[in-house]
Amino acid sequence: MSLLIQNVSLNDRDCDIYCAEGLIKSIGPKLTVDADRVLDGSGLAALPSLINTHTHSAMTLFRGYADDIALFDWLEKKIWPIEAHLNEEAVYWGARLACLEMIKSGATYANDMYWHHRGTARAIRDSGIRGTVSAVFLDHMNPDNAHEQRAANEASFAELKDFHPRVTFGMGPHAIYTVSPESLRWVKEFAAEHQLKIQIHCSEAEREVNDCLKAHGKRPVHYLNELGFLGPEVLMVHMIWLDDSEIAVLQDHNVSIAHCPSSNMKISSGVLPYPKLKEAGLNLTIATDGAASNNNLDMLEEMKTAALLQKVTTRNPEMLPAEETFVMGTRNAAKALDLNCGEIQEGAWADMILVDLNHVRLVPNHCLIPNLVYSSHASAIHTTICDGQVLMHDGKVDDEEEVKAEATRMAQRLLDQVQ
Amino acid sequence: MSLLIQNVSLNDRDCDIYCAEGLIKSIGPKLTVDADRVLDGSGLAALPSLINTHTHSAMTLFRGYADDIALFDWLEKKIWPIEAHLNEEAVYWGARLACLEMIKSGATYANDMYWHHRGTARAIRDSGIRGTVSAVFLDHMNPDNAHEQRAANEASFAELKDFHPRVTFGMGPHAIYTVSPESLRWVKEFAAEHQLKIQIHCSEAEREVNDCLKAHGKRPVHYLNELGFLGPEVLMVHMIWLDDSEIAVLQDHNVSIAHCPSSNMKISSGVLPYPKLKEAGLNLTIATDGAASNNNLDMLEEMKTAALLQKVTTRNPEMLPAEETFVMGTRNAAKALDLNCGEIQEGAWADMILVDLNHVRLVPNHCLIPNLVYSSHASAIHTTICDGQVLMHDGKVDDEEEVKAEATRMAQRLLDQVQ
Repeated sequence: MSLLIQNVSLNDRDCDIYCAEGLIKSIGPKLTVDADRVLDGSGLAALPSLINTHTHSAMTLFRGYADDIALFDWLEKKIWPIEAHLNEEAVYWGARLACLEMIKSGATYANDMYWHHRGTARAIRDSGIRGTVSAVFLDHMNPDNAHEQRAANEASFAELKDFHPRVTFGMGPHAIYTVSPESLRWVKEFAAEHQLKIQIHCSEAEREVNDCLKAHGKRPVHYLNELGFLGPEVLMVHMIWLDDSEIAVLQDHNVSIAHCPSSNMKISSGVLPYPKLKEAGLNLTIATDGAASNNNLDMLEEMKTAALLQKVTTRNPEMLPAEETFVMGTRNAAKALDLNCGEIQEGAWADMILVDLNHVRLVPNHCLIPNLVYSSHASAIHTTICDGQVLMHDGKVDDEEEVKAEATRMAQRLLDQVQ
Repeated sequence: MSLLIQNVSLNDRDCDIYCAEGLIKSIGPKLTVDADRVLDGSGLAALPSLINTHTHSAMTLFRGYADDIALFDWLEKKIWPIEAHLNEEAVYWGARLACLEMIKSGATYANDMYWHHRGTARAIRDSGIRGTVSAVFLDHMNPDNAHEQRAANEASFAELKDFHPRVTFGMGPHAIYTVSPESLRWVKEFAAEHQLKIQIHCSEAEREVNDCLKAHGKRPVHYLNELGFLGPEVLMVHMIWLDDSEIAVLQDHNVSIAHCPSSNMKISSGVLPYPKLKEAGLNLTIATDGAASNNNLDMLEEMKTAALLQKVTTRNPEMLPAEETFVMGTRNAAKALDLNCGEIQEGAWADMILVDLNHVRLVPNHCLIPNLVYSSHASAIHTTICDGQVLMHDGKVDDEEEVKAEATRMAQRLLDQVQ
């Protein structure tokens, strides 16, 4: 299907954007092309769609299920017992809800890590967005588990590598305290062999660092470095408790980082050492984490939170400007995951959002990106396009009602099972 | 006009709510009353509307005009030069935009402090919400200014006391560094004589405390206390740089506090010492501050930001739960300003919101208030009611387009004048 967007504002100039075969084919004033579908872009601004570099999509099912409690109680008493009842069908509908929410808030790429990931893969495929899905790889340092997990990841890779063009398989070793060093090495090798991306939670809690020092006599980044784990294909999630020597190592290996400010604040993990990471030239991205610790998947909200958190903790109002958060949520994320998007340009994937310049929160329009990041909310996004397909238009997504109903039903079923 | 809301969810039970003469007259299952207007509340939950205890409404005109710059540059190079061109008409349309935005995000009360406050009073009246307007009282320690300001406040009070039932005049001495001690005493006396509320910025910046120590040999709260300024009619805004002795004094005088987390973070002012203020039993409320330093007037967003900020800075995920932020934005605010609202009960003002329980961000509905605070955004608010009048229904406000167009025109005019 080809798509022509007419009279849309791009970098403050009116132009047309023509998309075909899932790509942006041409950009210019008054294009004379025939298209299967024509959208009137008047009063709308085109921007790259947002890229959520770390989430557990199906955890939308647990949104609001357990808030404002300590991490240990949250996991042991609430999340783990209910997660035990998950199956692929529940994950499918939870992930559909996540995709719906992302489409409605302008994100068209999710880098997911969760159980029953086949359900997530199906949900990404069916919702029209793109994503990387990874199984949660953890062996709890047990060789039998490790053997089983490696086999499962091999099978998942084999199944998903030709599953759908918008779905990619990735490696998701959970963390250094849940995955044995042997398995971390295996993950690294498997990823290298098949050109896969890796995401891993790291340096999220202070305790994680202390435990690592106790167990291995070194801090987490050094531990991973000595395993040969680090590299540009690795996206490290959270990255709060870092010292200068670790940042230097991260810089040497050119890793990318997924910053999850709302989750870090809500769970009280701490604050990303953004000024130092920025100074080291690391590729920084923004992510929502799962909806059980956020509690939404709203990338615009995450950008504002990231900016405000850095300003107040560094006592510097110039720190992390709005424009930079937007680049983190688009171009930097595309770089981290090797995606052909993150900017609106000819030859790139036709993944974009059209923003309503007449939305109450974007008026007056002194400056679009700060308005979008600091003032607007998801409903300022009028249209969401992925792979040249219009997934949302005028705020409407075709199968929204079905998705909400099924996700509600799944959440209730899980609740009934756990009680 | 009387209003009947049928089959609405109130505290998780379905009921009807009947409003007349601006009040909630009865609440119960299947009320048999005739009403001028009947709303179907199916799938909606009724909650008290939100109360914004500190804002500079017309600063919506400067939304996005100057972000991510240091406070001094922000004020001297950007805000003050453009504010110099304001007049009542510009303030009227800026405040209309603010009221529109508040209606669309569920707030029906604004405690405002700004220049050309008659414009704000007219905007509040015309938009259908309620509010307190105060002139910005500042004399810069100059007796001539002081004389003029007192006369202006007397005249404003005389004009506004019978202006409109939904508009109240209040006293707004700017801060201790801009208002002379004689004028602060005069404000206190004038407020006492006419039963007016007072709002004052206090202890926002560390420098303010240091300057006060240098000039007066004491910290700001002690300085105000020795002037006899403190009392339950005083709402103190920001209140970041406080020591324990000041908190004890605030407790003795039973003042209320307006917490503006987004503004405090964006300007890098610091963090409210919430745990100590809470322990002291002080009446804490939430506010957006003006849209030039936030950059919106969204009370739900402010609640989430307040909760996350306390959790991360205290390293305690149990700190400031969602339910408490909601009470701060409703019941506590009503207490601070002596308003007959903040809870849905018979005899209270008919000021409420109806929330769409089927909104994507409220699904699944494990728990409404955490969902609303942590997950939802303004468009989850389906209906906003103030004084028994439906100001927004199904997300639509009657004069939205006119307000946005006029505010845009005013912002452009100011921009042209300043350039």
